Amino acid sequence: MKTAAIISIGNELLSGRTLDTNTKFLTENLLELSVPTVAVYTVPDDIEKITRACRLAADDADIIIATGGLGPTPDDLTRNAFAAMLNSPLKLQQDLLDKIELYFKSRKINMSPNNKNQACIPKGSTPLPNNLGTAPGILAKKTGKIFAALPGVPSEMKDMFQNSLRPILKQLPKEKIILIKKLNCFGAGESKIANTLGPLLDRDRNPLINITIHFGRITLTINAAADDQNTAQNLLDADIKQIRDKLSTIIFSEDDTTLPQTIGKLLTEKNKTLATAESCTAGLLAKLITDVPGSTAYYTQGWITYSNKSKTQMLNVTEEIIEKHGAVSPQVAAAMAQNAKKLAAADYALAITGIAGPKGSTPDKPIGLVYIALASEDKIKTEKFIFSHDRSFIRERSAQTALNILRLKLISNS
Amino acid sequence: MKTAAIISIGNELLSGRTLDTNTKFLTENLLELSVPTVAVYTVPDDIEKITRACRLAADDADIIIATGGLGPTPDDLTRNAFAAMLNSPLKLQQDLLDKIELYFKSRKINMSPNNKNQACIPKGSTPLPNNLGTAPGILAKKTGKIFAALPGVPSEMKDMFQNSLRPILKQLPKEKIILIKKLNCFGAGESKIANTLGPLLDRDRNPLINITIHFGRITLTINAAADDQNTAQNLLDADIKQIRDKLSTIIFSEDDTTLPQTIGKLLTEKNKTLATAESCTAGLLAKLITDVPGSTAYYTQGWITYSNKSKTQMLNVTEEIIEKHGAVSPQVAAAMAQNAKKLAAADYALAITGIAGPKGSTPDKPIGLVYIALASEDKIKTEKFIFSHDRSFIRERSAQTALNILRLKLISNS
Repeated sequence: MKTAAIISIGNELLSGRTLDTNTKFLTENLLELSVPTVAVYTVPDDIEKITRACRLAADDADIIIATGGLGPTPDDLTRNAFAAMLNSPLKLQQDLLDKIELYFKSRKINMSPNNKNQACIPKGSTPLPNNLGTAPGILAKKTGKIFAALPGVPSEMKDMFQNSLRPILKQLPKEKIILIKKLNCFGAGESKIANTLGPLLDRDRNPLINITIHFGRITLTINAAADDQNTAQNLLDADIKQIRDKLSTIIFSEDDTTLPQTIGKLLTEKNKTLATAESCTAGLLAKLITDVPGSTAYYTQGWITYSNKSKTQMLNVTEEIIEKHGAVSPQVAAAMAQNAKKLAAADYALAITGIAGPKGSTPDKPIGLVYIALASEDKIKTEKFIFSHDRSFIRERSAQTALNILRLKLISNS
Repeated sequence: MKTAAIISIGNELLSGRTLDTNTKFLTENLLELSVPTVAVYTVPDDIEKITRACRLAADDADIIIATGGLGPTPDDLTRNAFAAMLNSPLKLQQDLLDKIELYFKSRKINMSPNNKNQACIPKGSTPLPNNLGTAPGILAKKTGKIFAALPGVPSEMKDMFQNSLRPILKQLPKEKIILIKKLNCFGAGESKIANTLGPLLDRDRNPLINITIHFGRITLTINAAADDQNTAQNLLDADIKQIRDKLSTIIFSEDDTTLPQTIGKLLTEKNKTLATAESCTAGLLAKLITDVPGSTAYYTQGWITYSNKSKTQMLNVTEEIIEKHGAVSPQVAAAMAQNAKKLAAADYALAITGIAGPKGSTPDKPIGLVYIALASEDKIKTEKFIFSHDRSFIRERSAQTALNILRLKLISNS
């Protein structure tokens, strides 16, 4: 099986200024092309370190991808390292220079003389076009291995990978096929899911199933490996079926579809509308819902009732209820949902009230106590949760849980 | 100067399942201890690869820090790699085992026999206590170099670094002191800031000043290096003064203080309150404001008027204004802010209306067109922006820009 090694280049990656998100993107996309990554080297803008990493990477793998160091300044050294490693001098390519000059001209910016460096690539290598910036990438082959240099700016890197490098890697002969499917779950803990799936999670099994957790969302990544496409697909399909049978409605989507996208699809299909009323999450729930393009079709409006007074003033939650039960109570959550639904004339309204911390707890109301209410048709359902960790986690988890409550309601109706 | 190399261990880091945030944390914190990181090796759960990375890292640097691979299962191999590299066999430490058993007992969970592995560390090395999980870390010295193994779970890794490793590294003799200060800017582009700072940004200068950009926030990181503390501090202070003179109110905070925290501090000092009215950002602005603990002291409430109808119904924006000027117009932004301020009886109200895309544009109203209004005392100020990039960027940039408009108002009043 072909393998990859990645070289991540830049002082900013070694000083904590920049979080390297490129490597996650590349490793994930390479694996989808049946190319597992076996090593990543993160090195500074230093010609010797970059060249050494290229040599180590070429020992490790068949496909060597460098990111970063393609800028115009003297500390951008990936071109030089590739030239040294390929034993092929840098050569100015007039067509690349023309393109770079045009980039600046069309933006009415004076080109710095430094940018001329970006038109130089090692003799015998191929430029990879950059649709979003000035730095072309580099593609070279040596002793049966593929070397590629991509920009460090994530948007440029992704665009170049998808449009130029992926098609090339896709055509490589494959000794082994890896097919991957992600199933996203919400509403059960990791240990419950692990117990339910049992031997499906064995480490020496094919397909190999991995679990990752993010704010209560649990993702199962199923990796099926086989000598041919059909066998891999059958292995994958059989696992998907088994897991779906076992986890049922705990699974809310496949691959990269988010919970807000799933909700959006369900609301659109059913032609229903949604409103929100938030206290401790204070806009986060609405923000997540409207992260989805086109959410205007089903999401109409929301109230952020952060103060007690605003709960009364904006959503007619009576002072008596708040005084008697407290702002964080099932009664207030229910009243917020009910009145939000009524005022918005929406089909559904979600309400959240809770204590996100770090202050505001009382002996009988701990930090992490959250009530979520869903008003639908003529019913209101209120649930109590106690989430742990910090303020940011409690808020994110509360909003995601509210979305999941709505999802379960929407699928139970169908 | 002492240098560091990091070894990031785990299959999940090479398959795109997990984003490595540990490395950014470690490199940033090491630099604050005057220890620059010179290399990072990311390797799978493979004893040979881990051991090779340890040897390469020891060639590169004086302090070698591994993260991950300390779990209880057979694919957690950092202990074994350290034993091989130190040439010192693993030995069960009874006190470590007692602590792990207590961890499970106090949580009423049955301990798996595998967890016994976690009580084994190479003979002659020192355990680093884990306050949040079961895996102790490892500290060892060999030929003048320091080797440390920390857990891969970010919360456990950070806690162990801060409480156990940092104090040890802090006491190392230093040939060179590095002092770092971050100045955060908003309201001017990178090129304007670069032009204003001119030769301060030269690459061969000490202090070295680096620029990073995040949703319109520009951070200048000033690194001052000297043989002694005083000289480094003087170099740093002189640069901070020069930059503050040149950029003035463009700088909103130092180090890790966010724009919402800065606003919160200003509102609290002045004893003023704030309300919000959001269309295209739909809760994001309120979410950012309430990310700050204690924001309940100045933030009272918010309206999310996503549909046109809700703008009329919730904030009394007349149908005539919307029909005449459109929902994305300075008139609607102003009316939203004015009425939010009035209804909330707040000192300030921020309103945002815009086109976040990818749909919804018209020939004269492009994607990224955003109007932001601030109502204060008896004035309303409305500003027009055209942001580029995608939906998520436009929304984040809009909310941050609104906060900055409020910040400039608050400091102009003092």
